[in-house]
Amino acid sequence: MITYEEAFRRVMLYDKDYGTETVPLLKSNFRILAETIHADRDFPPFNRATKDGIAINFATFENGTSTFKIEATVNAGMPQQELKDANCCIEIMTGAVLPKNADTIIMYEDLDIKDGIATLLSTPKEGQNIHQQGADKLKGAALLEKGVKITPAEIGILASVGKKKVLVAKLPKVVVISTGNELVSVSETPKPHQIRTSNVISLQAALSAEQIIAKHIHISDSKRAITKNVKKALKQNDVLLLSGGVSKGKFDFIPEVMDDLGVEKVFHKVLQRPGKPFWFGIHDKLQTLVFSFPGNPVSTFINYYAYFIPWFKSSVGVGYSDQFVKLDESVANTTGMTLFNLVKTYWKNGSLFVSILKNNGSGDLTSLSEADGFICLPHKETDYEKGELVVFVGTK
Amino acid sequence: MITYEEAFRRVMLYDKDYGTETVPLLKSNFRILAETIHADRDFPPFNRATKDGIAINFATFENGTSTFKIEATVNAGMPQQELKDANCCIEIMTGAVLPKNADTIIMYEDLDIKDGIATLLSTPKEGQNIHQQGADKLKGAALLEKGVKITPAEIGILASVGKKKVLVAKLPKVVVISTGNELVSVSETPKPHQIRTSNVISLQAALSAEQIIAKHIHISDSKRAITKNVKKALKQNDVLLLSGGVSKGKFDFIPEVMDDLGVEKVFHKVLQRPGKPFWFGIHDKLQTLVFSFPGNPVSTFINYYAYFIPWFKSSVGVGYSDQFVKLDESVANTTGMTLFNLVKTYWKNGSLFVSILKNNGSGDLTSLSEADGFICLPHKETDYEKGELVVFVGTK
Repeated sequence: MITYEEAFRRVMLYDKDYGTETVPLLKSNFRILAETIHADRDFPPFNRATKDGIAINFATFENGTSTFKIEATVNAGMPQQELKDANCCIEIMTGAVLPKNADTIIMYEDLDIKDGIATLLSTPKEGQNIHQQGADKLKGAALLEKGVKITPAEIGILASVGKKKVLVAKLPKVVVISTGNELVSVSETPKPHQIRTSNVISLQAALSAEQIIAKHIHISDSKRAITKNVKKALKQNDVLLLSGGVSKGKFDFIPEVMDDLGVEKVFHKVLQRPGKPFWFGIHDKLQTLVFSFPGNPVSTFINYYAYFIPWFKSSVGVGYSDQFVKLDESVANTTGMTLFNLVKTYWKNGSLFVSILKNNGSGDLTSLSEADGFICLPHKETDYEKGELVVFVGTK
Repeated sequence: MITYEEAFRRVMLYDKDYGTETVPLLKSNFRILAETIHADRDFPPFNRATKDGIAINFATFENGTSTFKIEATVNAGMPQQELKDANCCIEIMTGAVLPKNADTIIMYEDLDIKDGIATLLSTPKEGQNIHQQGADKLKGAALLEKGVKITPAEIGILASVGKKKVLVAKLPKVVVISTGNELVSVSETPKPHQIRTSNVISLQAALSAEQIIAKHIHISDSKRAITKNVKKALKQNDVLLLSGGVSKGKFDFIPEVMDDLGVEKVFHKVLQRPGKPFWFGIHDKLQTLVFSFPGNPVSTFINYYAYFIPWFKSSVGVGYSDQFVKLDESVANTTGMTLFNLVKTYWKNGSLFVSILKNNGSGDLTSLSEADGFICLPHKETDYEKGELVVFVGTK
């Protein structure tokens, strides 16, 4: 059996660039940008008034003038005007283009305006209240680099350079597959020995947070049904996420079926708890990946975040790094395995602490709702001390 | 002019319960649950095998027997079977119902099976490898409380109790409105004095993260057009988010129009930077709220997260609390105003630190992409020290 570190390393070897696609601007939100975005003009594109007031030629003030006749008014959205008489001023609104021959703006609060004459109430500074053309970025400058995650801030930038459509990293096509004769659909009333499908519904919801819309297939515990459906799924998808069917039972056909269908096992079973029977493989010809998670709710859930999410992030090109949090009690792990413990997080003095949740084992679905994520504790001869930093994976 | 704290307090006075609505299970992801979810049966609903192996009657082992003839095999999904002869065993798969008369499961790894006879290789513990009926939750127990945010973990629980449709908090109907003659649409090529609309597109993207699909209306700087469109928008929505049109310029009609249309000003202008000209009001009869943000990109963005988001969270019933982070350099604010500084966050020894971003002022759209959020610095006579805790608002 391999260690968690080794299993993780092997999964990450199969990260894959699924290419790019073009989507409408608002649909690109939370996707990964696949092109560099350049400024199509200076930012701002002109000398822009940042206050409402008057625009003057500063030299006139320096020469002793502090009252200015208002020659005209310019609003945002008007083409550039010209201050014709340097002894006069132009009334100007925020967002408007600074008129030719003007170089300084005095805001209303520092003015007294009467009968079309503006009188300065304080001493202006040359060039004040103007957002200079190109001050933020010059035309051609890179505004957004390839590989950034698009969020509302980036949407604003994309809009401002006219990207009605955006090139983003294509998402892998994922299907979630439940197996097990004990499972009935959410809308059915289970008989005493049955339960409703929930693991893969949870996975569908988790995938939707990555903007992946995954189909759900349920297959009963028959080798024939599994073979037929998995064969089809391998052709139609980039990734299969399965829940159940990988432990040692007589009816756990997955490893066998995968072998028959040409899916090469990368590993089966990992020195970890929960989720030991995790099976991972690849169809060499189709390049379809198979993450086959143990059927317990906690096992499926934790394996998804421990393996699939880092693999996915690496594949779309955003990268993945460990987050460390502080333990709020000492804890031991001398099991020879990596333990994944569900935890609740809380902030204290700017640090993120975790409390370990006691749960009833890998079947305890309800404990997942109480947790904010889990910590990874490798085997260690000495205790993990209170306050020690451990790796945390968030699931909320 | 009122302080930021006072402005915040006043906005929060207008939080409002918009009622509830029923949505399909997967659509409830990231919404707020509006009903208490009870266990419709015990969790788990039966004594469930957690390992593959054999089920025995422990008393037989205690009486000295360690070889058991296999009487039958039970798989997950089969109705409960019975161990007819207590000297025998039943082969059992994970997820199956524990047979009557059996009380202990021994996994394959601890067995030697030959010719239909299983021999124990180690000493079992009574009741082992069984997830006892009701061990997680008893029938009728509350699994999820009203007011929790639904995430993939909760989706799993909702699925398991058969919630094909879920009662969630209804979202306010929001419209984003841009004003300003200088603005052209994203698909247009702006003239030298024009810029493309970006603030409200950014707001649309931010609202979609809250599952709110907001329409966008652009209104030109004419009092008549603003009056006509705002009047209609007030009737059709719960919240109007405006960008631009609230500073002191001659063409900033919003406050005047709002007054004409019966929208009562709660406040106009806040001792904060950026975003000083923020205008907030309510139409008493329609109960429509108006958040009218200054038109600069950074002002609109920060005001949205500083006021709208806490208001929204409080309205849907999830509550809102401040998050504190550590400053990585000392900083002063003796401006008499609250400063909102864009920051980049990073983890160090389990603590979240922020670096203050230098930007070119409230017009610098590109700085928003570099930031992970902003910190709120109230006026303070002494410096904020390196390492001091300050309030942080995340925007990524």
